[in-house]
Amino acid sequence: MTDFFKGISKIAYEGPETTNEFAFRHYNADEVVMGKTLKDHLRFSCAYWHSFAWPGGDPFGGQTFERPWFGETMALAKLKADFAFEMFDILGVPYFCFHDADVRPEGTNFAENTRNLEEIVDYFAQKMDDTGMKLLWGTANLFSNRRFMAGAATNPDPDVFAYSAATIKTCMDATIKLGGENYVLWGGREGYETLLNTDMGRERKQAGRMLEMVVDYKHKTGFKGAILIEPKPQEPTKHQYDYDVATVYGFLKDFGLENEVQVNIEQGHAILAGHTFEHELATARELGIFGSIDMNRNDYQSGWDTDQFPNNVPEMALAFYEVLRAGGFTTGGTNFDAKLRRQSLDPEDLILAHVGGMDACAAGLKAAAAMIEDGALEEARSARYSGWDTKRAQNLLVSDLEGVEQFVRDNDINPQPRSGRQERLENLVNSYL
Amino acid sequence: MTDFFKGISKIAYEGPETTNEFAFRHYNADEVVMGKTLKDHLRFSCAYWHSFAWPGGDPFGGQTFERPWFGETMALAKLKADFAFEMFDILGVPYFCFHDADVRPEGTNFAENTRNLEEIVDYFAQKMDDTGMKLLWGTANLFSNRRFMAGAATNPDPDVFAYSAATIKTCMDATIKLGGENYVLWGGREGYETLLNTDMGRERKQAGRMLEMVVDYKHKTGFKGAILIEPKPQEPTKHQYDYDVATVYGFLKDFGLENEVQVNIEQGHAILAGHTFEHELATARELGIFGSIDMNRNDYQSGWDTDQFPNNVPEMALAFYEVLRAGGFTTGGTNFDAKLRRQSLDPEDLILAHVGGMDACAAGLKAAAAMIEDGALEEARSARYSGWDTKRAQNLLVSDLEGVEQFVRDNDINPQPRSGRQERLENLVNSYL
Amino acid sequence: MTDFFKGISKIAYEGPETTNEFAFRHYNADEVVMGKTLKDHLRFSCAYWHSFAWPGGDPFGGQTFERPWFGETMALAKLKADFAFEMFDILGVPYFCFHDADVRPEGTNFAENTRNLEEIVDYFAQKMDDTGMKLLWGTANLFSNRRFMAGAATNPDPDVFAYSAATIKTCMDATIKLGGENYVLWGGREGYETLLNTDMGRERKQAGRMLEMVVDYKHKTGFKGAILIEPKPQEPTKHQYDYDVATVYGFLKDFGLENEVQVNIEQGHAILAGHTFEHELATARELGIFGSIDMNRNDYQSGWDTDQFPNNVPEMALAFYEVLRAGGFTTGGTNFDAKLRRQSLDPEDLILAHVGGMDACAAGLKAAAAMIEDGALEEARSARYSGWDTKRAQNLLVSDLEGVEQFVRDNDINPQPRSGRQERLENLVNSYL
Amino acid sequence: MTDFFKGISKIAYEGPETTNEFAFRHYNADEVVMGKTLKDHLRFSCAYWHSFAWPGGDPFGGQTFERPWFGETMALAKLKADFAFEMFDILGVPYFCFHDADVRPEGTNFAENTRNLEEIVDYFAQKMDDTGMKLLWGTANLFSNRRFMAGAATNPDPDVFAYSAATIKTCMDATIKLGGENYVLWGGREGYETLLNTDMGRERKQAGRMLEMVVDYKHKTGFKGAILIEPKPQEPTKHQYDYDVATVYGFLKDFGLENEVQVNIEQGHAILAGHTFEHELATARELGIFGSIDMNRNDYQSGWDTDQFPNNVPEMALAFYEVLRAGGFTTGGTNFDAKLRRQSLDPEDLILAHVGGMDACAAGLKAAAAMIEDGALEEARSARYSGWDTKRAQNLLVSDLEGVEQFVRDNDINPQPRSGRQERLENLVNSYL
Repeated sequence: MTDFFKGISKIAYEGPETTNEFAFRHYNADEVVMGKTLKDHLRFSCAYWHSFAWPGGDPFGGQTFERPWFGETMALAKLKADFAFEMFDILGVPYFCFHDADVRPEGTNFAENTRNLEEIVDYFAQKMDDTGMKLLWGTANLFSNRRFMAGAATNPDPDVFAYSAATIKTCMDATIKLGGENYVLWGGREGYETLLNTDMGRERKQAGRMLEMVVDYKHKTGFKGAILIEPKPQEPTKHQYDYDVATVYGFLKDFGLENEVQVNIEQGHAILAGHTFEHELATARELGIFGSIDMNRNDYQSGWDTDQFPNNVPEMALAFYEVLRAGGFTTGGTNFDAKLRRQSLDPEDLILAHVGGMDACAAGLKAAAAMIEDGALEEARSARYSGWDTKRAQNLLVSDLEGVEQFVRDNDINPQPRSGRQERLENLVNSYL
Repeated sequence: MTDFFKGISKIAYEGPETTNEFAFRHYNADEVVMGKTLKDHLRFSCAYWHSFAWPGGDPFGGQTFERPWFGETMALAKLKADFAFEMFDILGVPYFCFHDADVRPEGTNFAENTRNLEEIVDYFAQKMDDTGMKLLWGTANLFSNRRFMAGAATNPDPDVFAYSAATIKTCMDATIKLGGENYVLWGGREGYETLLNTDMGRERKQAGRMLEMVVDYKHKTGFKGAILIEPKPQEPTKHQYDYDVATVYGFLKDFGLENEVQVNIEQGHAILAGHTFEHELATARELGIFGSIDMNRNDYQSGWDTDQFPNNVPEMALAFYEVLRAGGFTTGGTNFDAKLRRQSLDPEDLILAHVGGMDACAAGLKAAAAMIEDGALEEARSARYSGWDTKRAQNLLVSDLEGVEQFVRDNDINPQPRSGRQERLENLVNSYL
Repeated sequence: MTDFFKGISKIAYEGPETTNEFAFRHYNADEVVMGKTLKDHLRFSCAYWHSFAWPGGDPFGGQTFERPWFGETMALAKLKADFAFEMFDILGVPYFCFHDADVRPEGTNFAENTRNLEEIVDYFAQKMDDTGMKLLWGTANLFSNRRFMAGAATNPDPDVFAYSAATIKTCMDATIKLGGENYVLWGGREGYETLLNTDMGRERKQAGRMLEMVVDYKHKTGFKGAILIEPKPQEPTKHQYDYDVATVYGFLKDFGLENEVQVNIEQGHAILAGHTFEHELATARELGIFGSIDMNRNDYQSGWDTDQFPNNVPEMALAFYEVLRAGGFTTGGTNFDAKLRRQSLDPEDLILAHVGGMDACAAGLKAAAAMIEDGALEEARSARYSGWDTKRAQNLLVSDLEGVEQFVRDNDINPQPRSGRQERLENLVNSYL
Repeated sequence: MTDFFKGISKIAYEGPETTNEFAFRHYNADEVVMGKTLKDHLRFSCAYWHSFAWPGGDPFGGQTFERPWFGETMALAKLKADFAFEMFDILGVPYFCFHDADVRPEGTNFAENTRNLEEIVDYFAQKMDDTGMKLLWGTANLFSNRRFMAGAATNPDPDVFAYSAATIKTCMDATIKLGGENYVLWGGREGYETLLNTDMGRERKQAGRMLEMVVDYKHKTGFKGAILIEPKPQEPTKHQYDYDVATVYGFLKDFGLENEVQVNIEQGHAILAGHTFEHELATARELGIFGSIDMNRNDYQSGWDTDQFPNNVPEMALAFYEVLRAGGFTTGGTNFDAKLRRQSLDPEDLILAHVGGMDACAAGLKAAAAMIEDGALEEARSARYSGWDTKRAQNLLVSDLEGVEQFVRDNDINPQPRSGRQERLENLVNSYL
């Protein structure tokens, strides 16, 4: 045990009545719900960037965190890994996620960056062997360095496209080597600051081509994981091309990739796009592109990405209800793309923020499972649409406007509305919480 | 001349220096810009609903307008038409648009509604013959009557689907009879209030099927106009399926209708979806589905559809710049989907609101044309992407991740960012205003 | 029992495990918490307007509800009262609230309106005697009729000011006669649509003068209730003068009324002003103007007043925590300024929406009481500021800039930040839920 | 001339028709409008922080700007000053503004910071003597350093309060020494992240006490400038106590400082608070606390402080109209609290962004002056309220509710609404542009 987490033991489940803040109240990893353990349902993952690479800055202030691993050397990168794996162990999460830039020092060029990455990947591989930790997904940071300021795939400079493609390859290689279960693309700079200097058509084609290359490389390497796009409407750019799930779907259809690529949906990004998290989850499910989730919570009243740890159990229940309706995760999982508030300086804060988030998710999932198992919600939904199951209704769908008009005239169709019962259903949801 | 518009003469162009508020300062219909008259560029249209059917209510108060034509009889519907055509004449607009419910009294059933509509369509036809007025588009109001409270095409009750389809047919028939140049679908209730009672998959399929029927009927009748979907993110529903242009595109692709259906883009709906108007216009152009525009202005700080008349010329210039970049309107036009503030009680207000809006559009269009003709903006845009026109760059696009990596290594690609020059371009735009 | 609520019995408390949706799961009226019954803590009230006067319209559609009492006759007004009191009885709420316009038919002038109001007040008085129901507050509707379209107290027309003042007097008289415990002013039209036609200085003075008159009349009549202003940022107006609690405070200070007038805080209005509900509650408490609450819930992502029934227990807990920290209600209470979704057509919906809301509040209050009684939150808060309790710190506050600079130099003050522990406190809150 | 601005000459006025982007099209410094030169009306000021201290980072990426003066030594601080004064000269602005942390290297403690500041102040003084440049205002950066993460005046740690007070004193001293015309307080961290760990009452009192000390020090030193608070609703904090102008007014009234302190209003902060810029300006004017402006523009659709250079002339016209209605600036001025987009890397961008902003302001001011001089807007406003100038109306204001009721009854007052003419007034405004 390092000094940093000194005195913090592995977090155990103690049940809802515990007064020990260093214990799980709801996340009992081995508890079986709907035939699966909570561990297998939730597939929790920690994000390397927020917990280990972010210094606590915001647009009006710099670093607040002081971490023994901060710095740009390979030795510190390995020290960072030591601390990270110690935290994973304390929390009992089975997965983690990372960008290349989170885990290796920035080199002077592509070759050095790649060497640095490969060295740390070997270091990770050893630790993963030792601990059983798994990689939920890897990704490339194509947005922080100034070379990416005008985009990666969508950059007006083809050299940046090339640099980005090469970097993605190295990150896919790293992901494959570490047995990652998905590879994620978040296009933080794939958008524009002003339409005035932007060729949207070109940029869109560049983005499509890059995605095709990624899919081709997946097939060439035999990578079995899923390729995931993470939608976000804006920030850092004024407009990001992967605005939301529906927008990504249109993009995938345009390039014929809707069966090759899925989405990684973040609660905060959904909020910023004007949607609820459950809306985005349901949309992905209905469009057949549901992949994984980035779990956090965005302040509804702050117009930027607040990336807070989730804590509202009723909201978690609605989200996991949609996950369960989608059949649960296959390659995906629940990745905490959440960061400490910059005033939460202590090692205890880092641990307990995750504990609280894991508990909120577990409580939400259990409530969601109860809703599924009880079936009353789905029964109400089916009943509302039951008219569509009649032959008369199915005939309508294969008719044409003239045929339908005749039907309306012949039967003097004059439909009367029926209650949507929203409040009753909301009460019903609350009864499972 | 009726009493209502008594004393208001036909509005004439008097130029920017006029102090006559009953004159155009910028809209000189016959002025030629880029080889076309302003009249043919702008293709102005008045919306029947806001100016003739809306009583001035808001969620906290009822009717403020007192109009001689208000009431639910056929005689009043014809009187309303008399006033409407008088206003069109005063303004010198070439087009108008309407929903069935704007123009005919509500009957007791489908058959009576259809008879009422047909009678008023005959009345319109006569007036159009007499005046040369044209119909930009027709549409069906499938959202105001309580039967549509849970949707039209997407209703859980198949009888509402049928009623809606039949109504659309009658409105398409009316549009065809009047020589309409487009037919519009705005799905004000095609969305949901709560996911809890909603089967998104079913509803999406119902909406797709309805659209197929509309397209089939277009082909069957030989209607030459465009079928247009009007996106809106929410309001009246919590979520509307036709959220924005990109969402509509994905929907069209899913049903194979992307070459059959275009979009009618409203400034206010763009704003409510988190986009600028010019973003939506540019997106539609790049996706090949640009059709027409609903011109208005939404208060950026009021979270509902304010439907104000446009008055910010710099914003109009950016919007019409994108329209001109799309090649200008073909079947589409500039429809004022704008309403008086409910305190603007007087006939003069109704006329002058349109005059101001037409002038703002004309001034914006002229500035946009100057930008196009001068070419400096497009020159800057091309220069920014000129690297992509090299053979080296084009090779990148046909390579694969491994090939690109090799290229980066071989050439030690280490791209340096170049200024995006946003402020300079913004200054450039201002120089045309 | 009328036909409308036929078959719906008085709602009883059955506890969290009940599966009867017509029962309380958390609201046990007589349960004692912190020395008071839930009934006395919560002081629930039903709003006449939403449940009995609102027809279910929205900006894109008209009436959906069909109620036997709808219509503009005195007989129907009394029938409405019969149904209302039946609902109060079914729910077991001790209070109700109303505007004049909710309860009486609109007359042709002030005198008739007053006679109508007086007649219905007598009818209410009898029913209140019979049932023990009490009036939480009365108010005047000075926003729906077209005469108020440009404001009531702040109208450019002094006759509207006069009409409004006279109407307020009649509503205060009604409130006094019925033993109301507060009188509320919500200035729905006291704001502006455009600064261009607005004399903000005049309007502000008119509003201040009207409030002085109200306070004077309170004292003259010996009314013991509180005078409450209800803040709202906008809607229906572009800007409403009573934007939020802090704005109202400045207004009261300006007219020397900060000890005479308090605030009635609505969850939805807080949200629309960019605040959390608990922020507004805490602000009012710290400024000494906390009065009462309008309980509802606003969709965070819909930019208008959605007035939904509350259902998120964690949010209720935070709100009631601030209420309890303010010492709980004195004259105030928990008024459901919440309306059914317009698709919720059935009598059962009306009852169950209230039941769900009452349960959410009760569960929230019980959690809040547990937080208060446990004391851990307040202990953490005090500890964080404990440095201020030292003599050294108190000396700072009575020093001046020069003295403090000397202190900093003499002691080489170089403060180190300490963790704010936000996530730990959020976890702590969750442990009471 | 340094290498950095090499080849950029002093910007001259060339008029609207110029095609030289390095020239003013509207800002003719010596042009007289309403009896004053544009220079004296506008009192332009450059902000040191955005143009010389900000490295171009955002929450998802680091430094993009490479400036020869970046670094933390006194020599570089002086080099920075050399470049800054060169830019002021190129632009021909008469004023600048700064925070301590913009201009001096960060020292290890208060004493070193103060010495560094004093040394650079001497350096500034010499340059100001040489060039005639003046200081619009000085201020202290009490938000960037991690010691301020939980607030400055409102910190839970009294040592931070002390450190902040001492720092303010040194910044006031610097301002006084340089002949500054105002001293500004922006409380970027004076707010909270979560109510759970916040004692709002204490913090408010601490803030009030700090402000009293500042006012006392102003009087003690004989400083003739204005003390200005700059409101902002949130960001970096979840909630900032100085939310908007109305909130600041209430705070000032509470501490009896409303005649001692005014506001510095920023366009972007107004937008983030849900207000138009002109609303905040008008509010400050009516409350008697209008001081100065921070000119920029916030993207209406990005929920964070975008601090762009202004470019929408119609909006500028409405803003300066309110400034002129307030009598114009006395100690205040037009400070560009605006930053380059982070992709605008070049020295030319820095100059031309200011040129565009100055031109937009000048064009707006000239239009505003034309509106004032023409008088039609004010005439319409007066006419709308003219009823209030009658004796009958004035009597109403000195009556009481009973007297007014009698008046309404006696005269059967039944007011009819009159048109608010919003669109006509908007057209009128456009006629001056």
